[in-house]
Amino acid sequence: VRDVVITGAGMTAFGKHLDRTLASLSEEATYAALADAGLEPGAVDTTYVGNAGAGLITGQEMIRGQVALRGVPLGGGPIANVESACASGSLAVHLAWLAVASGEADVALALGVEKLIHPDKQVSFDAIESGTDLGPDADTTRDGGSVMMGAYAAEARHYAARYGVAIEDALAEVAVKNRAAASHNPRAQFQTPITREDVLASRLVADPLRLLTCSPLTDGASALILRAADAVTGDERAVTIRASAVRSFDGIPPAPRVVERAAQAAYARAGIGPGEVDVLQLHDASAFAELIQYEQIGLVAAGGAAELVLAGEAGLGGRYPTNTDGGLLSRGHALGATGVAQLFELVTQLRGEAGDRQVPGAKLALAANSGGWMGTDYAAGVVTVLAA
Amino acid sequence: VRDVVITGAGMTAFGKHLDRTLASLSEEATYAALADAGLEPGAVDTTYVGNAGAGLITGQEMIRGQVALRGVPLGGGPIANVESACASGSLAVHLAWLAVASGEADVALALGVEKLIHPDKQVSFDAIESGTDLGPDADTTRDGGSVMMGAYAAEARHYAARYGVAIEDALAEVAVKNRAAASHNPRAQFQTPITREDVLASRLVADPLRLLTCSPLTDGASALILRAADAVTGDERAVTIRASAVRSFDGIPPAPRVVERAAQAAYARAGIGPGEVDVLQLHDASAFAELIQYEQIGLVAAGGAAELVLAGEAGLGGRYPTNTDGGLLSRGHALGATGVAQLFELVTQLRGEAGDRQVPGAKLALAANSGGWMGTDYAAGVVTVLAA
Repeated sequence: VRDVVITGAGMTAFGKHLDRTLASLSEEATYAALADAGLEPGAVDTTYVGNAGAGLITGQEMIRGQVALRGVPLGGGPIANVESACASGSLAVHLAWLAVASGEADVALALGVEKLIHPDKQVSFDAIESGTDLGPDADTTRDGGSVMMGAYAAEARHYAARYGVAIEDALAEVAVKNRAAASHNPRAQFQTPITREDVLASRLVADPLRLLTCSPLTDGASALILRAADAVTGDERAVTIRASAVRSFDGIPPAPRVVERAAQAAYARAGIGPGEVDVLQLHDASAFAELIQYEQIGLVAAGGAAELVLAGEAGLGGRYPTNTDGGLLSRGHALGATGVAQLFELVTQLRGEAGDRQVPGAKLALAANSGGWMGTDYAAGVVTVLAA
Repeated sequence: VRDVVITGAGMTAFGKHLDRTLASLSEEATYAALADAGLEPGAVDTTYVGNAGAGLITGQEMIRGQVALRGVPLGGGPIANVESACASGSLAVHLAWLAVASGEADVALALGVEKLIHPDKQVSFDAIESGTDLGPDADTTRDGGSVMMGAYAAEARHYAARYGVAIEDALAEVAVKNRAAASHNPRAQFQTPITREDVLASRLVADPLRLLTCSPLTDGASALILRAADAVTGDERAVTIRASAVRSFDGIPPAPRVVERAAQAAYARAGIGPGEVDVLQLHDASAFAELIQYEQIGLVAAGGAAELVLAGEAGLGGRYPTNTDGGLLSRGHALGATGVAQLFELVTQLRGEAGDRQVPGAKLALAANSGGWMGTDYAAGVVTVLAA
C-alpha cells in the first residue's frame, strides 16, 4: 500500500448554526480544504462523508453527502456516506486513507458534517440517544436524562471507588485545561476561560458529571484532502498518516476495550510506543472519557490518569498536551464532524501553525475518536497517528 | 491490488417481516453466508453494513451495524455503516472489495439489511422520500404520491414521446418477465405468475407506471463473504469480482448519467464489452428503470430497450437474461439489502446452482444498482462484474 499524506485541511467555526444548512457548512469546510491543498473540486477522485444525526435533525435520512455537496462539482466519483456515531468523522478519514493507500484513488476528500442543534432540544437528545443500542437487549441507563452521560457517570463512580481517586477534581481539571486551550482557538464553541470552582458550581447532570464536564450540542464541518505521498514530494506542509485503525464492539465482554484495541493496532502499524507522541486528541465527550482514554491508549497505567491531569502534564506546556483546540468540551462536539476536527487540529499543530496554542516542535500526534455505546463499551474506536 | 473472490452468500426470504428485528434478519443472512464460506464469525476481519432507512423505521439512527450484529462474535474488527440510498448494499460490497483488494483485510463481510415495512405505511413512504434531495434546491415531483415514482413516470413519458415507443406494453412485459423468473425463486416476495393484462389492469400510480410496474415495500437481508483469491485457490465455487465501480451525482447536467459512467468504468476494469455478459441484474425500482438501464449499460442503443424486452431477449432463454430472481419488482426491494441480493443471485447463477431459473453455462455477470434521486439523475450508481 502507498504512503498517504494530508495536504489540505478546512473547518468551519464550531457552535450554533441554526440558520445554516448541512450544504452550507459542508461547502465552507470543503472549499477551505481544497484551497489549502491547492486543488480544484474536480481533482477529487473519491469522497467519504461522515454524519451521524441528519436523518433525525433535518429529515435527510439518505444520500446526505450527495445532497450536502450538490453545489460542489467533485467530478462524479464515489460519494460514500459513512456512519459510526461520534466516530463517523474518523471513519470517513480511515476509508479515504484506504482508498488512496490502495491506489484506487489519488485524491480523496474526507468530510465530517453535523447539525445537531434543533429548535426543539428534545430532537437533539433523541438523535444522540440513537447512538446507543436501542434494541431490546440494550443495557442502558438514562441517568440524568442522557443514556451516554448516564453510562459515563456510572463508569466514573466505579473508577473513583476502585482507584480511590478524587474524581470530581480530576474531571474539573480536564474541563478547565480544555477551556484554557480553547481560549486560543477562534473556531472553538466556548472560548471564555473557566475555573475549577466554575465547573464544580455548574449543574449536576449525572453524578459526578456536571454541565461543564459534559460536551455540548454543536454544529459544524471539517474536511481533509488526502493524497499519495509520492505525488506531493515537494509539499513541506504535508502531514503523513502513519496509522489509521478502526475497531468495533465485538459482542464479547470488553477485555480489552475498542479504543485500547484500536490504539494497539495503530502503534503496531506506526512502529511507535504510546509515550512517543508529542500532541494528542482524546474523545472528551465527557471529561471522564478523556481520563479513561489516557489509560486505554497506554499513556499511563490503570488508575493513573487523574494524577497525570492534576499534575498539569496534559495541558499546554505539559509532557502530553491533549485537546489543544479545546476538545469536545470546549471546541464543541459536532458528532460526525468531530473526528475530522480532531485531525484538523493535529495537522495544524504538526505544521507549526497553531499560534498561541502551538506545541513547540510537535512531530508525532495521536487522535482517539470513539462512537456509540453498546451497554458495556463504545460501539467503535478509531485511533489515528500522524507525523510531520 | 489483489484479486478478490466471493466464497459465501446468504439471504433471507424477502417480504413482509413485521415480527422480525434488523438483528434477526442480519444474523440469518450472515450465518448463512459464513456457513456457505466454511468460516466462523471470528474469521471476519472487517464488515460493511448497508442500510438506508432504519433511522426512520426503527429509530436506530446510528451504529446500526454494530447493533444488528451484536449477537455475532465477529472478532472486533471494523464495522462500517455505509449508505447510498437504494445502492447502499452494493456500496458495502464495493468497500469490502477494496478492503480485501488492498490487503487491509483477508476476510470481509458485506451485509445489506432493511426493514422498510412499518405498521404505519406513511412512515415507509417518508423513509423512501428521504432518498431524494429534500433540500431547498430540489427539483422533485410528487406525482402519484411518490417522488421517486413521479420522477420515473416523467422520464418514461418523455422517453415514449422521444422514441415513439409503446411504453405501457414494454413496462408490462418487464413486470411479467420478472414475475415469471420469481416463480422459480423461493426467496422472492411475489411468486405467482402474472399476465400483461394483470399489469395493465393494476392501479395507476403515476402515468404510465402502475402498481405492478413499481417495486414493493420489502424487508430482508443478504450477506456476502469476500476473500483474497490466492487464499482459496481450491474453491471451485468461488466467484471472482472482476470490477466494482461506484459513481455519484456530480452536480452537473447529466451527460452521461451515473449508471452509464459506472458501467464504463466497470467494463474498462474488467476488460470486457457490454455484450459479453451472460446474465444480468438491473435496478428495476420501476419497470422503466430496468428499460433505461439496458441502454445506460450499453447493451442496446438509446430507444432500443423496449424492443429488446418485447422480443423476449431479457427473459430466461433470451440472449440477456435479466433479473432472473424476479428483480426488485418481484423478488422485492429491501433498499439497503437490494444491491447485495442482486449479487447473491449472480453468484448463485455463476455457480450453476439456480435450479429452474439457471442460465445454462453462465460465466460472466453484471449488476447495476442505483440509489437516490437528485432531480435529474440518480445520486449513486454502482456496477459490478462477476465471473465464474
